[in-house]
Amino acid sequence: MGNYYAVIMAGGGGTRLWPLSRRARPKQSLRLLGDRTMFQVAVDRLGPLFPPDRILVVTNAAYAADLRRQRPEVPAENYVLEPAPRGTAPAIALAALRVRQRDAAGVMACLTADHYIGNEAGFRDLLSAARAVAEQDYLVTLGITPTYAATGFGYIQRGARLGEFEGREAYRAERFKEKPEAEEAAALAADGLHSWNSGMFVWRASRILAEFERQMPEMAAVLRAVEADPDGLEAAWAGAPNTTIDFGIMEGARDVAVIPAGGLDWNDIGSWEAVLEVLAAGAGANVSVGAAHLGVDTANTLIHSSNPNPRRLVATVGLDELVIVDTEDVLLVCRRERAQDVRELVERLKQTDGGEDYL
Amino acid sequence: MGNYYAVIMAGGGGTRLWPLSRRARPKQSLRLLGDRTMFQVAVDRLGPLFPPDRILVVTNAAYAADLRRQRPEVPAENYVLEPAPRGTAPAIALAALRVRQRDAAGVMACLTADHYIGNEAGFRDLLSAARAVAEQDYLVTLGITPTYAATGFGYIQRGARLGEFEGREAYRAERFKEKPEAEEAAALAADGLHSWNSGMFVWRASRILAEFERQMPEMAAVLRAVEADPDGLEAAWAGAPNTTIDFGIMEGARDVAVIPAGGLDWNDIGSWEAVLEVLAAGAGANVSVGAAHLGVDTANTLIHSSNPNPRRLVATVGLDELVIVDTEDVLLVCRRERAQDVRELVERLKQTDGGEDYL
Repeated sequence: MGNYYAVIMAGGGGTRLWPLSRRARPKQSLRLLGDRTMFQVAVDRLGPLFPPDRILVVTNAAYAADLRRQRPEVPAENYVLEPAPRGTAPAIALAALRVRQRDAAGVMACLTADHYIGNEAGFRDLLSAARAVAEQDYLVTLGITPTYAATGFGYIQRGARLGEFEGREAYRAERFKEKPEAEEAAALAADGLHSWNSGMFVWRASRILAEFERQMPEMAAVLRAVEADPDGLEAAWAGAPNTTIDFGIMEGARDVAVIPAGGLDWNDIGSWEAVLEVLAAGAGANVSVGAAHLGVDTANTLIHSSNPNPRRLVATVGLDELVIVDTEDVLLVCRRERAQDVRELVERLKQTDGGEDYL
Repeated sequence: MGNYYAVIMAGGGGTRLWPLSRRARPKQSLRLLGDRTMFQVAVDRLGPLFPPDRILVVTNAAYAADLRRQRPEVPAENYVLEPAPRGTAPAIALAALRVRQRDAAGVMACLTADHYIGNEAGFRDLLSAARAVAEQDYLVTLGITPTYAATGFGYIQRGARLGEFEGREAYRAERFKEKPEAEEAAALAADGLHSWNSGMFVWRASRILAEFERQMPEMAAVLRAVEADPDGLEAAWAGAPNTTIDFGIMEGARDVAVIPAGGLDWNDIGSWEAVLEVLAAGAGANVSVGAAHLGVDTANTLIHSSNPNPRRLVATVGLDELVIVDTEDVLLVCRRERAQDVRELVERLKQTDGGEDYL
């Protein structure tokens, strides 16, 4: 496996996890689920499969120092810095170039820095299987077997079976579908042919770079310029299109495979509701992170404190299905079912005098 | 009015306003309703009627320094310090002795330090009328005309009309009733014969001291000992019974009068629910004290912050009828209708290892 590289995409984002997430402190740097940051968890779960030397991190300069501090064992030279955020396609292209420069036969797993994966051993098994498929020159997408009719994810329809690889079935990916409406989502989640698009991919660096040449020639031109003059990255980056890997490459790519994965206990932690879902021990249980909790008649409630007072106590009476997020300067109290509307608070702050200070 | 003294009873208490109220920071020292503490408000509303020199404060030594800082214009020698809390009867007896020592013909108004009175001019008018009744040697109780079937207050039944005093009707007090059950409360609040017992009284110091001689001779003995040797207060205090003025004196007193007062906009601020009630501008309105509030679909919600962070922002989504109290070390989130159950949190803390630190 010496030619297998993990590329952790850690570029930013996450306004639905405000007020913990901020512009200067994006989701991957948060201790959302406990003591470790999401980035630390994303590195640690690669454990036996990828030594730190073969873990690359794509991010922008503003976040790099903080990420470096979180996991100093990943070498500084493994950081791939985007001059400016342009979506996942340019980020992956830049990382692919770096992998190919280091190892012409390199296979790369493009991984997220901010997802929860409960079954980490299963995830590593999946990555091993995906590498075997990628060695056959496929662009492999990691599919997640749906557990409900999600409208927040894209779906991948599987086609012909490609075979079994290290105990997992791989299929040709027949079609990518954008986030569906509720009715279609119910059908897709139930038909046994569709997986959620996890946003994680495995392929040979040379193979994805060929796809950039074919489908995104302006991005390929940027890479050629950078190869000729590494110091010219910033100038060349102006020519990089702003697009996602799904839209820019995957939807029009040849020989795309999908490995449907069930039982990973995967969650993209898209909102505070998801944090409660991942951490709750069972129906009715409360979750408290970072503060002592004293509750009277309180159920299904998330308390997440990053308040600097180490003696912080959160006391509750008569609550159900509530989200309480206590940071140094902002306290959020939100009905659980309204967790997505945290975005509206962020929008309002953008339009409020002095509101930028809280973003 | 040179012989009219205000005695503000500021001895402590208030666990239902936890976590803002603490043992070391009782209700009268809290900025519950805005910029001023309840004690400051209690002094300020006496305004034109009582100059600071004729305002006495009964409290215990632990609170005196803090109260002095809040209203330094009240002279230090006007503080009457209980060696230990023994209920309102001994506190009032000690204050009555002080008033009589200063002015044999002194009339004293025993007032609360922790009640809200919206109509302050009306309150001063009531105090003027009560003095006129007290000059006739009555023990005057200030009654509050019920506005709902309260079960949290005692009631006073009025008897024969005594006459009009400075524009207010006074009646003989026929009977004191303890806090009633809901059914009886509904009857008492509606019959036009009952007032709430505000816990505020006006009388001649000599008159109430005679009542102590008659009904609480052990307390009278304490006072005689203190009169003979002012330095012996602490030793003598061991003989003071632990009881309230209502139970110890009023229920068995002769010539008790009541002046029913409507329109005072009075509230004893017995819970966080009452704070919201007093401060809300109307149905559906939110109240925010001490922090900026950004709300999406939020109504009937109280936000009370004494968090030391001056930039504190409280953001809410989808809330109704909630109480949020944010202090330096404790955050309370409570359903409005459960505000009384804050006492249960306090009880639990007493039984929890380390819980005392939060009381």
